[in-house]
Amino acid sequence: MPIGMAPITQVLFSKFFKSSAKGHPWINRDRFVLSNGHGCALQYIIAHLLGYDLSMDDLKAFRQLDSKTPGHPEAGHHTPMVECTTGPLGQGISNAVGLAIAEANAAATFNKPGFELFNNKTYAFLGDGCLQEGISSEACSLAGHLKLGNLICIYDDNHISIDGDTACSFTEDVEQRYLAYDWHVISVNDGDKDFEGMYKALEEAQKVTDKPTLIRLKTTIGFGSLNQGGAATHGAPLKADDIAQLKKKFGLDPEQFFHVPQEVYDEYHKIQQRGAGYQKEWDSLFEQYKGKFPTEHAELARRISGKLPDGWEKALPVYSPSDSAVATRKLSETALSKLAAALPELLGGSADLTGSNLTRWSDAVDFQNPTSKLGDYSGRYIRYGVREHAMGAIMNGLHAYGLHIPTSGTFLNFVSYAIGAVRLSALSNFRVIWVATHDSIGLGEDGPTHQPVETGMALRAIPNLNFMRPADGNEVSAMYKVAIEAIKTPSVIALSRQNLPQLEGSTIEKASKGGYVLKEVQNADITLVATGSEVAIARDAAAELEKKGIKARLVSLPCFKVFDDQSLEYRKSVLPSGAPILSVEAYTTLGWHKYAHVQHGLNTFGASAPAPQVYKKFKLEPVPIAEKAEKVIDYYKKQGTPLVSPIELAAAFE
Amino acid sequence: MPIGMAPITQVLFSKFFKSSAKGHPWINRDRFVLSNGHGCALQYIIAHLLGYDLSMDDLKAFRQLDSKTPGHPEAGHHTPMVECTTGPLGQGISNAVGLAIAEANAAATFNKPGFELFNNKTYAFLGDGCLQEGISSEACSLAGHLKLGNLICIYDDNHISIDGDTACSFTEDVEQRYLAYDWHVISVNDGDKDFEGMYKALEEAQKVTDKPTLIRLKTTIGFGSLNQGGAATHGAPLKADDIAQLKKKFGLDPEQFFHVPQEVYDEYHKIQQRGAGYQKEWDSLFEQYKGKFPTEHAELARRISGKLPDGWEKALPVYSPSDSAVATRKLSETALSKLAAALPELLGGSADLTGSNLTRWSDAVDFQNPTSKLGDYSGRYIRYGVREHAMGAIMNGLHAYGLHIPTSGTFLNFVSYAIGAVRLSALSNFRVIWVATHDSIGLGEDGPTHQPVETGMALRAIPNLNFMRPADGNEVSAMYKVAIEAIKTPSVIALSRQNLPQLEGSTIEKASKGGYVLKEVQNADITLVATGSEVAIARDAAAELEKKGIKARLVSLPCFKVFDDQSLEYRKSVLPSGAPILSVEAYTTLGWHKYAHVQHGLNTFGASAPAPQVYKKFKLEPVPIAEKAEKVIDYYKKQGTPLVSPIELAAAFE
Repeated sequence: MPIGMAPITQVLFSKFFKSSAKGHPWINRDRFVLSNGHGCALQYIIAHLLGYDLSMDDLKAFRQLDSKTPGHPEAGHHTPMVECTTGPLGQGISNAVGLAIAEANAAATFNKPGFELFNNKTYAFLGDGCLQEGISSEACSLAGHLKLGNLICIYDDNHISIDGDTACSFTEDVEQRYLAYDWHVISVNDGDKDFEGMYKALEEAQKVTDKPTLIRLKTTIGFGSLNQGGAATHGAPLKADDIAQLKKKFGLDPEQFFHVPQEVYDEYHKIQQRGAGYQKEWDSLFEQYKGKFPTEHAELARRISGKLPDGWEKALPVYSPSDSAVATRKLSETALSKLAAALPELLGGSADLTGSNLTRWSDAVDFQNPTSKLGDYSGRYIRYGVREHAMGAIMNGLHAYGLHIPTSGTFLNFVSYAIGAVRLSALSNFRVIWVATHDSIGLGEDGPTHQPVETGMALRAIPNLNFMRPADGNEVSAMYKVAIEAIKTPSVIALSRQNLPQLEGSTIEKASKGGYVLKEVQNADITLVATGSEVAIARDAAAELEKKGIKARLVSLPCFKVFDDQSLEYRKSVLPSGAPILSVEAYTTLGWHKYAHVQHGLNTFGASAPAPQVYKKFKLEPVPIAEKAEKVIDYYKKQGTPLVSPIELAAAFE
Repeated sequence: MPIGMAPITQVLFSKFFKSSAKGHPWINRDRFVLSNGHGCALQYIIAHLLGYDLSMDDLKAFRQLDSKTPGHPEAGHHTPMVECTTGPLGQGISNAVGLAIAEANAAATFNKPGFELFNNKTYAFLGDGCLQEGISSEACSLAGHLKLGNLICIYDDNHISIDGDTACSFTEDVEQRYLAYDWHVISVNDGDKDFEGMYKALEEAQKVTDKPTLIRLKTTIGFGSLNQGGAATHGAPLKADDIAQLKKKFGLDPEQFFHVPQEVYDEYHKIQQRGAGYQKEWDSLFEQYKGKFPTEHAELARRISGKLPDGWEKALPVYSPSDSAVATRKLSETALSKLAAALPELLGGSADLTGSNLTRWSDAVDFQNPTSKLGDYSGRYIRYGVREHAMGAIMNGLHAYGLHIPTSGTFLNFVSYAIGAVRLSALSNFRVIWVATHDSIGLGEDGPTHQPVETGMALRAIPNLNFMRPADGNEVSAMYKVAIEAIKTPSVIALSRQNLPQLEGSTIEKASKGGYVLKEVQNADITLVATGSEVAIARDAAAELEKKGIKARLVSLPCFKVFDDQSLEYRKSVLPSGAPILSVEAYTTLGWHKYAHVQHGLNTFGASAPAPQVYKKFKLEPVPIAEKAEKVIDYYKKQGTPLVSPIELAAAFE
C-alpha cells in the first residue's frame, strides 16, 4: 500500500492538504486518517516530510519497542499526524466521519459572516478490507444521510487482500453502493501514473459541498516491484534485489537507504511554508474575531484549550434518601440535561432507542443537514441509527477533532457490537462516554438476547476503560463527574431500566472514589460489596442479617478502575481484612474474586420474564443472599484464621 | 410488526412455505428466520397455526418465566420453528445467509440426477434496524457474491424505528444498495392490502435461482390501529379500545381474546397436511436414494443423526517432547487438515487472513458459485472476506441447518468484532468453532491494535462458551477433540503466532480435562498455572526455582469451562490447598483470582516490537516470574496459616 498509494499521497499533500506548521494542533488543519492503517509507513514518511516531529531515526525504528513508529498508527500517544488509532479495519473511515461531523458542528457554531474559522476537510484512505467491514457501511450510510461535504475518501482499489484477488469474496459494485448512500463518486482508472486525473478528482471533490466524496482509485499494489499487483507484496517485505530495481526504476540510488533526495525535502519545505502561512492567516482572523465576537472567541478559546467551564460540576443533581425511587437511566437523563446546558462541548447521540435510553435532553436540537428540516449542523444530538459500532468509532473521531465531549446511547448488551471501537478509545486515551442502559436481567421481558451478563466484566478487562455501574442518583452524578474529568479515559456508564431507591450514605464525593462504604459497622461479621441495582438488594440482605444479630458492612463499588486508582490505605479501609467479603452482582461472577472472598451472581444467561421474577429465579434477593452470607461467615469461623483482604494480598505484590 | 407483517406472513405460509409435519426437523424443510425478532409474537402464532408444539397456553405465557414464548426467539431450547436466536438486530438476516449456504452445500454434495434431496428455500423477514447494522451489509454482500438463489428476504419497509421516522437517520437507497450487492430486488408498494402483488413477488422470487432476492415491502406499522404508521405502535402494547376497534375492523369479535376462528384453524390444517405431504414424498425419495446410492445415503443419514464417524478422533495428531517447536496456529493447520479428511461435515473458512491463520487445508475446495471458476458449492472452505461479525452469524446459520460443523478463522483480537454473534452461539447451544490465531502480545510488531489482552477473559465470561488456549501440539489436538464433542457449546481456540515447544507431560487425554498437572512435585512450595504460550515460560520459571531448591508444581489450564466441568476431587488434585498458586498469562489478570492466589500478567495494552522484546518489557520471562514466585512463597510463609485453594473455597458455596 505505501507504494501503491504513494502517487495519490503526493498529489494530495503537495497540492491540497492544509497541514499545520510543524504538526502544531491547529484546530482548522485538514485531517488525514489512514483507515488501511497497516500501510502506516506511508503516513510516517509524509509526517517526516511535512516537518513534523518524526526524524529519520524515528523512521528507522519502525515497529521497534517504544518507538514513535509502531506497526499501526496509534493516536493519543507520541506519534505526530495520527488523529485516530487505525489498523483494525473499518475503524479509520468511521473515525473520519466523526472528524467531519465535528468540523461541521464547529463551523455551524462558531463561523460568522466574514469569519470562516472552520472549513477544514477530512481525508481518509481506505482499502477493500475497510469496505468489507460492516462498520464502514454503518458510518458511510450515516455520512451520506448527513450530507458531509467536508469528507473526501480515497478507496485504494487494488483488487488484492491478504487472501489474494478480491474476486474470491468481494465482488459487489462499490461505486453503486456509495451512490446508494448518496455519496458523490469519482473514478480514477490509473492511480499509478495518471497524476492529472488524480489532481482533477481531488479538485472536483473540493467543490462538492453537499455530499461526501468517494474517489475510487485503481492502483497496482507494490507498483514498480517485480511482484506488483500480487498478494505477495501485501504483507511481506520486498526482497533486496526487488527494492534495488524499484529504486532504479524511479530514479533513486539503489545504494542509499533511508535517504530522501534533497529536492524532495526542498519541495516539502515549500509545502511546510504554505501550511505555516494558512495557520498564520487563521491566527490573524481569530484575533479579529476576538474584537467582533468576544463571547464566542472566549468560548472557542476555552474549548480549544480543553479547559472545562468554571463550576460546571455544580450542575450535577444531588439526591437524599427521601427522594423517590427512580431508574438510573432516568437519573442519567436528568444529569445529562443539566450537563448539556453547562457544557456546550457535550455532543450527545444514540443508536436508535432514544426513548428507552433517555439520552436526549428536552430542548436538544438534532445534528442534521439543514435541508432535512429535522435539525441543523449546530445541533448537539446525533441520530446514529441502529449503528453501534460506527457510533463508537465516530465518537473517537469527534473526540479527536479536539472540541467535543461525545456521549452516546444504547443498551449495555449492544456495546458488545462496538467493542472493536471501544478498545481503541481506551488505547488512544480518548474521553468518550457511553450511556448504556438496560444493564442487566433487570430489563426483564426482552430476555437473554438483550440481558448482558458478561459485558460488564468484558469492559472491566479492557485497560484504561471506566466501566461504571451507579446505584442511585448521587452515584449517577458522581459517575458523570468522573467520566468528564477523566480526560484520558473513556467511560461506559451502565444504567438500570428498573427503579432504584436513593441510598442512605451515598454522596457524589464518596462515589467519585469508585468504591466506598455505604454502611460502616464496628467488628463486622461480613462485608457485602455490590454495584448498581444490586446495592439496595445487598442493603436489604444486611438488614436481614441484622435481624439475626449478624453485623454486615455495606460497600458500593461503582467503578473498579477508579477504585483501583485510590491509595492502598483508602482501598483497605473500604475492603479491610478481618472479615469475609461477599460480592453481589447480577452478572457472571468471574473477576469478582479480585475484591471478594466469595461471589454471588449468575453464571448462566438470564431469562425472559418480568424483572422481579428473573431476580427471584437467580436468587438475587435479600433472603437468599443473607443465607449465603451466613454460610460464608460460618466457613471462615471454622477456618479459624485471620482473613486477609484481597486488596491487602494484591498489594503485597504490586 | 406482528400486525404490519401479518399479510405477507399469511401469503408466505399459506402459499409457498414448505413446513414440516408438526415441526419435525425434516432436513429439507423451508427455513424461516425472523431477523426483526422483537416481532416474535407473529412467529409464535404461525408456529401455533402450523400445528407445531406451541399451544394457546404457550401463547398466553408470552414473555413469562420459563415459557416457550420468550421476548425474542431463542433457538436451541424448546421453542419450535425457531432456527436461530434473533432479536439483536442484523443477526437473523446473517443467520439466513448461513442457512442458505448450508443448503447449497448439501445440495451440491448429496443431490443426484432425479434425486433433488435438497432444494429448500430460506426466508427471512428484516426491518430497517437490521439493514442499518453493519453485520447485515457484510452478510448480504457475501450472499450476493455467492449468488445464493435459495435465499428470499422480505424487508419490512415501514419507515419507523424506535426513534420515529427513519428520515432521521436512514435515508439511503436500500434497493440500489442491494443491486450493488448483486441481489435481485422486487418492490411491493402496498404490503397492507395488495395480496396479489405479494403473491407475485414471492412467485417471482422462487424463479430467481442465480441471485438472492430482496422484496422491499412497504407496510404500515400497526396497520389497523388508531396509531398506525407511528412509532407509538413500535414498542408499546395497543390500548384496549384500540384493540377492540382493530378486531372489529378485521371482522373479529372484540370480546374474544386469544381466540382463533375455526375457519383459520381449518385453513392451516390444510397447510399442515400439505407440509406432511412434502415430507412424506421426501422420505420416499430418500428411501429410493438408499437403493441407488447406498454410500451417500448412509453418509447423509449419519449426518442428519448428528453422529460423528467412528474413530474420527484417531485423526488427531499426537506429539512427543522431542518434536520440534511449532506455532500452535501451525499445529492447528495440521489438526484441521486431518479433521477435514475425517469429518466431511467440517465446513471451514476464514475472514481473509487465511495465509496467516492457516485454516485452509491444502486440498480444500472453496465454497463458491461455480460460475466464479474459483470453486463450487460442494467446496468446504468459505472465503468470508474481512467480515468477522457476519462470519459469526453465518456460522450460527450453518450449524442451525443441521448438517455441518462450521469452523472459522481470524485473529483473536478480531473475534471482538463478532462478540454479538458469539454470545448468541453460546445462548443457542450451537457448536461452532472459532480458530483465533495471533492470540497475544506474542504477535509482536503489529502492536497493541492487534494484540488481545482482554479478549480471552471477555470470552471466558460468556456462559456456555469454551475459550481454549492450548500450549502445544497435544493440547491443540485435545482442544479440537473437546470442541467437536461439545455438541451444545461453541468454542474459540486461541493460537500463537510464535513457535512453542512440545511439552513433557502433555497428552490429549489429560488436556481434554481443561486443566491438568504437567509436572507434579511432592511437598511443593508453589503451583504455577499458565495457559498457551506462557506454559513453557512458567515451566522455565519452575526450573529457575529448582536451581534454588524451591519446588514448583506446573499446571496447564487450557480451558476454564471444561476444567470447571470436572469433578471437585479432580479440580482439587490439580489446584490443591496447602501451597500458594501463581497464575501466568500474557493477558489482563482480572478473572485469574478464581484459580490463583496471586496473578502475573499485563494490565495495560501491549506494544509494537519483536515478540521477545514485548515479553521482556512486561516481565513475562522465567527469571522475573521465578522472582515473583519467591515473593509469593515468602508472603504466605509469614502468614503462617494453611492455605486454602480457590477451588476448595468456591466448592464450599456451590
